[in-house]
Amino acid sequence: MPSDDLTGTERFELRPVGRVSSPLTDRTDAPRQPDEDAPPADILLEPEFAAAAADLRPGMRVILLTWLHAARRDTLAVHPRGDRTRPPTGVFATRSPDRPNPIGLHEVTITAVGEAGFTVAGLEAIDGTPILDIKPVLGSIETR
Amino acid sequence: MPSDDLTGTERFELRPVGRVSSPLTDRTDAPRQPDEDAPPADILLEPEFAAAAADLRPGMRVILLTWLHAARRDTLAVHPRGDRTRPPTGVFATRSPDRPNPIGLHEVTITAVGEAGFTVAGLEAIDGTPILDIKPVLGSIETR
Repeated sequence: MPSDDLTGTERFELRPVGRVSSPLTDRTDAPRQPDEDAPPADILLEPEFAAAAADLRPGMRVILLTWLHAARRDTLAVHPRGDRTRPPTGVFATRSPDRPNPIGLHEVTITAVGEAGFTVAGLEAIDGTPILDIKPVLGSIETR
Repeated sequence: MPSDDLTGTERFELRPVGRVSSPLTDRTDAPRQPDEDAPPADILLEPEFAAAAADLRPGMRVILLTWLHAARRDTLAVHPRGDRTRPPTGVFATRSPDRPNPIGLHEVTITAVGEAGFTVAGLEAIDGTPILDIKPVLGSIETR
């Protein structure tokens, strides 16, 4: 792909590697971040990706990438955290789920690992949210 | 979308909101993370997303989400950091670019903002890498 291709016709295709199982079912009730009283959740992986998850262990800090399937993709500015007393802000300076490519980042701690997936200590994503990727939180350079 | 849809037929479509302009042109020469001697880079945004970037400022710490267009999507385990003395590890426990959905995360500092985009202090992504999203690094809960 040439680096001057900014014509807007290029597309990339994602497929979910798993899905969130959570007691949260309504976006409006969900906490805004994992450290804001979010409940534990299970991450159920599709069996064909089991080998990719083979080295996940309880106690690991990981970043879950999710597809925020309830988001609006045509929203370019929002009132941060839905607070209408705050001025409209370009979405790239906010964590709003509404954005051109609605990918969520959730830094969480794995508490248990099983055959079908794993459990995390606190996750604000609602039930059924597709999982796109799982990455370890980076430690210091010498431990990588 | 029902939460029990794990049949693997679901797909999501991404489009780039911009692109990396960098002196790095070869994946094999690139540093592995932004804090490993990566050079400054420009992020050139597509004009239609300018409103989403309107509140980015020099000094902000942001996470760039990129599409790792040179990655292999069928790789489920790798030797971490390409070191063949380390045992093969499931990619979800590594930061390998090779993974089912090759989305890169790059925590960087904005050093300048212009009409066409912005400059970041150190980025290991190669020239032409598509940008999917830009998110602020979260501060403490009371500052969100």
